[in-house]
Amino acid sequence: MEPADVWGARWDACDNTLARQYMEVACSKQSLVILAADLNTMSGLNDLVDQVGPHIAALKTHVDLVDDWTAESWAGLCEKAKAHDLLIFEDQKFGDIGPISRGQMAGIYDIRSWANIVTAHGISGPDIVDGLCAGWTDVGREGGVLLLAQMSSRGNLLGLPGYTDEMIRAGVSNSGVFGFIGNGSRANELAELRQKVGNQKLIWTPGVNLAVGDGEMGQRYGDPRDAVLAGSDGIIVGSGIYKSDQKDEVAKAYADISWQALLERSDI
Amino acid sequence: MEPADVWGARWDACDNTLARQYMEVACSKQSLVILAADLNTMSGLNDLVDQVGPHIAALKTHVDLVDDWTAESWAGLCEKAKAHDLLIFEDQKFGDIGPISRGQMAGIYDIRSWANIVTAHGISGPDIVDGLCAGWTDVGREGGVLLLAQMSSRGNLLGLPGYTDEMIRAGVSNSGVFGFIGNGSRANELAELRQKVGNQKLIWTPGVNLAVGDGEMGQRYGDPRDAVLAGSDGIIVGSGIYKSDQKDEVAKAYADISWQALLERSDI
Repeated sequence: MEPADVWGARWDACDNTLARQYMEVACSKQSLVILAADLNTMSGLNDLVDQVGPHIAALKTHVDLVDDWTAESWAGLCEKAKAHDLLIFEDQKFGDIGPISRGQMAGIYDIRSWANIVTAHGISGPDIVDGLCAGWTDVGREGGVLLLAQMSSRGNLLGLPGYTDEMIRAGVSNSGVFGFIGNGSRANELAELRQKVGNQKLIWTPGVNLAVGDGEMGQRYGDPRDAVLAGSDGIIVGSGIYKSDQKDEVAKAYADISWQALLERSDI
Repeated sequence: MEPADVWGARWDACDNTLARQYMEVACSKQSLVILAADLNTMSGLNDLVDQVGPHIAALKTHVDLVDDWTAESWAGLCEKAKAHDLLIFEDQKFGDIGPISRGQMAGIYDIRSWANIVTAHGISGPDIVDGLCAGWTDVGREGGVLLLAQMSSRGNLLGLPGYTDEMIRAGVSNSGVFGFIGNGSRANELAELRQKVGNQKLIWTPGVNLAVGDGEMGQRYGDPRDAVLAGSDGIIVGSGIYKSDQKDEVAKAYADISWQALLERSDI
């Protein structure tokens, strides 16, 4: 199926190279699943990608959680991800000024050299996006920044009047912005976010689970199909997959549900 | 001179162990200078601490900017800092949820094992402070979190109505909070911040320079003496020191000015 047909207006309006690449990968793998691999060993990460790689479209990492990280072992994981046609999404939640963020893409983790997508807060102002993109440019690569528009954590300040609006205003017009992180657990708020964002940018959402409402530590999950129908373009799933005894089957179930919901949304 | 005399109400009200430790160090070294060592080589960092160590009270690091970082070389730098009686302040600007932030204190940088103080945004909610403190507890240490209350970067969203108030409200009552980062370039806004924060927490401020108004890239600097008189308890100075040809003399000049301003503020 052609991305232009499946993604419709989103495909046409999109102005970030990586966002288009994601939409293509999602079509070829028939999955909108981003695996949140919040693990702290290289062997755990490698095993997980081996098991669920065919059913996911992107791999969300926290490189700084990995206790036995080495440059070589990480390069191996990235090769594995590439072999599975996965985009690599480092969820670093950058929050410094532009020039420092550019430097933080280097250092020994050298995020600029292997991540296709990174998260950032808009709190320090819009220059962070340019700083992060300059980091990729420094090594002759391109990438995309996901700005955090919604979170589900207790007492978070993203809901303060003006915060999301201001972030979206500055973010939508910047071609370095891949999209926004929304909250998949509340479909109505997600639909509002989609209306504000328009079609030019993607929205990815954590907070979804096949077992709705069944979260840990009081977290409430939303239904993945509802999230996609409300405007999510990628569902971020972590423990729902990696804590399961049938990881590959569960990952495939999330893939099927997300893909069917996308077709339904596109009227195909 | 006794810290209780010099710091007055701040010393009495303070509830974070590291904040007291800083106030003691500042008195013994007669300096409120935090050196922002935004360098990307280990040799540059070591040389800098060798040159200005006697005149500063704390060392602000960005561990993830260092291109030739190794665990061993970093441990050596931390030993050197300790020998100069410096607190180590990793300016990581954490911005994730509590449990992830706790994990980010580990990993190969193992920030929890050498940093005395770290920065965090309050954007994800107050649980980030508990997560970071749990990171220190995991290795039997104590630390303090500096929450960002003001920034000077273009289009930053810290000035949105309610943001700073909400952060201060949640932060002041948490003994894991060392204090707040204010903006040293505008003394009147800093004085307002001090009024909101009260005496229980420290305020540290970047954005000061002996050459007032002489910033790079359009940044405006404030006068260090004005900042301390307006309520800053620590002045964060970077290129003003490390780009100078007389690093130790310049560092001593900042130390003298900040210390004299503190005595003036305390009426000693």
